[in-house]
Amino acid sequence: MALIVQKFGGSSVADAESIKRVAKRIVDTRRAGHDVVVAVSAMGDTTDELLDLAAQVAPIPAPRELDLLLSSGERISMALLAMAIHSMGYEARSFTGSQAGMITTADHGAARIVDVTPVRLREALDEGAIVIVAGFQGVNPDKNDITTLGRGGSDTTAVALAAALGADVCEIYSDVDGIFTADPRVIPRARKLDTVTAEEMLELAANGAKVLYIRAVEYARRHGVLIHARSTFTANEGTYVLGEGMADPRQSSKESAMADVIGMEEPVVTGVAIDQSQAKITVVGVPDVPGSAAAIFSLVNKTGANIDMIVQNVQSAQPGRTDISFTLPKQSAVEVLKVLTAEQETIGYDSIVHDDQIGKLSVVGAGMRTHSGVSLTLFEALSTAGVNIEMISTSEIRISVVLRGDELNQAARAVHTAYGLDSEIEATVYAGTGR
Amino acid sequence: MALIVQKFGGSSVADAESIKRVAKRIVDTRRAGHDVVVAVSAMGDTTDELLDLAAQVAPIPAPRELDLLLSSGERISMALLAMAIHSMGYEARSFTGSQAGMITTADHGAARIVDVTPVRLREALDEGAIVIVAGFQGVNPDKNDITTLGRGGSDTTAVALAAALGADVCEIYSDVDGIFTADPRVIPRARKLDTVTAEEMLELAANGAKVLYIRAVEYARRHGVLIHARSTFTANEGTYVLGEGMADPRQSSKESAMADVIGMEEPVVTGVAIDQSQAKITVVGVPDVPGSAAAIFSLVNKTGANIDMIVQNVQSAQPGRTDISFTLPKQSAVEVLKVLTAEQETIGYDSIVHDDQIGKLSVVGAGMRTHSGVSLTLFEALSTAGVNIEMISTSEIRISVVLRGDELNQAARAVHTAYGLDSEIEATVYAGTGR
Repeated sequence: MALIVQKFGGSSVADAESIKRVAKRIVDTRRAGHDVVVAVSAMGDTTDELLDLAAQVAPIPAPRELDLLLSSGERISMALLAMAIHSMGYEARSFTGSQAGMITTADHGAARIVDVTPVRLREALDEGAIVIVAGFQGVNPDKNDITTLGRGGSDTTAVALAAALGADVCEIYSDVDGIFTADPRVIPRARKLDTVTAEEMLELAANGAKVLYIRAVEYARRHGVLIHARSTFTANEGTYVLGEGMADPRQSSKESAMADVIGMEEPVVTGVAIDQSQAKITVVGVPDVPGSAAAIFSLVNKTGANIDMIVQNVQSAQPGRTDISFTLPKQSAVEVLKVLTAEQETIGYDSIVHDDQIGKLSVVGAGMRTHSGVSLTLFEALSTAGVNIEMISTSEIRISVVLRGDELNQAARAVHTAYGLDSEIEATVYAGTGR
Repeated sequence: MALIVQKFGGSSVADAESIKRVAKRIVDTRRAGHDVVVAVSAMGDTTDELLDLAAQVAPIPAPRELDLLLSSGERISMALLAMAIHSMGYEARSFTGSQAGMITTADHGAARIVDVTPVRLREALDEGAIVIVAGFQGVNPDKNDITTLGRGGSDTTAVALAAALGADVCEIYSDVDGIFTADPRVIPRARKLDTVTAEEMLELAANGAKVLYIRAVEYARRHGVLIHARSTFTANEGTYVLGEGMADPRQSSKESAMADVIGMEEPVVTGVAIDQSQAKITVVGVPDVPGSAAAIFSLVNKTGANIDMIVQNVQSAQPGRTDISFTLPKQSAVEVLKVLTAEQETIGYDSIVHDDQIGKLSVVGAGMRTHSGVSLTLFEALSTAGVNIEMISTSEIRISVVLRGDELNQAARAVHTAYGLDSEIEATVYAGTGR
């Protein structure tokens, strides 16, 4: 008998029928003899609808009140889910983030978990109940105020519960079968991965893969939680995200041990991620003296924009001057342009160029550490496909390039093939967002 | 400076526009120099929609989970209302029933208030904030579980807060101007009452008047809370519900003192209430021996049906036999018929008659205690109108008669005129339920 934490997102509980289907899934796990703790998101688009309402009554909603408002979405879904399980003859008890002991900082809208004290959950488990917990929310003990964890908070709730309860596995359900070598909606021959390392997963998620949230994967890695990303619609195993020193759970069966031997021969690149949510800003003709970059990025930092790649090159045409390019979320670009333009004289640059038609392609693989020539394959594949590279940035296990946005999908297919990642069959794609 | 508790129902906060209008109303009160505590219901039909969802996922929803589900409705409206006030430049803080210290029994769906400990509300008031409290909900301290107070619970929340905080007045807002001598939608010449005694209000509410809930009026009477039933749409004073020994608050101004002198001359009947929600069951030919009524009503009691009038008459045609009639909510009739039919032999009655086409008309007035001839006016008015009386029942300050349902409105108009209650002008009627 294992203790299993399961997380179901908004699209898995979008209406009464979906809730009943999820309830059945949970009951099946219980029936197999396991203890089950479930973290659930708000139904479908509830959170967005509540945000709309808030915007209608107040231009800038008070953060404390906004968290109280948003937290009600998960209360609705958790109570309905508990009822549905109850009516199948199984004892189920639902708990708010506060009741579940999800203690957070007071940062409304983006609270960080500081402690998890699941006393009531343990009691309920000991009494044989299935436990349902509202995802995305917690409580700040100073004023006993409700907080929310920000986007993807329910994944983090699930992982944090798994860590605090010492769960055997944390199953994150979505409408895709697991983690793929690339987005199957773009690359039909993308292959489902049986396992992926946590650090690979972090790079993939940070660079456009949408199945798991970075924060939850990071939390899992730090606390040694085994994540199993799988589909709500099939009973097939999905993808296990392995932390350091974590054994592949499929090793137990002979067949999967065989699969793993084959796995040892797999390509050094684990996956190809693409991202079209970024824009590029280039500051042209910056004085090539110490402090220029600092001056620019201290201004950028004040806007709160999340900078991704930064590339600096000496400008050959104008000695003593340099160009600095960086990428950032499209919606942050206007604000950043404003502050940089206002300080043009202070920084002393020539001009500024904004480009929101870019695409970013990343290849990720832990094997890059020990293999050479990985980047060459990428550059050759892009060259053959006639795709021009605008920026390059690398980490220990990742290479990212910025391309024209309208060439991104074509480039990704070429690169996927070049690294030998193509599957022999096409992946099943469900209508949905992957969340 | 006074402390004012205000209650706004679901139709007053049905959408963003309504919420902003209510927020302005609250801010106006604050601006006049008063401390304000607000109890708010769920938006529009939210509660019914949540009940629908519950019914879809579970035929008989678990009561604990149902309360968690329903309580989220008020969390949404209270957070939105606090935001709206906030954006008008006033400090507002919202509190769940639990945070507000609304301690209840564990009876999910129909919890009774056992204590109110508004520590956090007092703190917020001391800090100059407007306080918003989720109506309809509380917490049972044994398991720290959320409870709901049942239908009309938000009125009770408001009155209980007013009592615990020692508020000067508890304003219950709705879409009607106050308490009328009759339902203005049936009797256009109904007159708004400036004051009504709590005991009259209880009789009116129990007999079909829908502006205030019995339970809230009873709570107010017991704890000496002054209720002011008034309209969300005008700034006019509504109707004050006066408990025993409570002074008319309008006495302070000369003009209203005059109005009160006129009030002393008002008719002994305060209002006419009508009710078409009841059915009548007659058990025919019951043995006229001790224990017959007890046998019948102990069976009825087991169904949980709420019996209203009971009338027993000796049957002249068949000596030693009697007929017992009673009224009860229409939806309870089937179950009651079932249990009575099953025990026909044990009780030994001849037959049973069910009639759901009845209407009940009640006249209420504290002056009945000291005036004679009140019932005669009623009977004569009905006779002149050609309306037949089927049952009669009286209390100290009320006379009720059961009539044919389709003659009820016509009868009410005749009776209203006969008691001299008609106003010279027609009442303004808003589209709405009065709630």
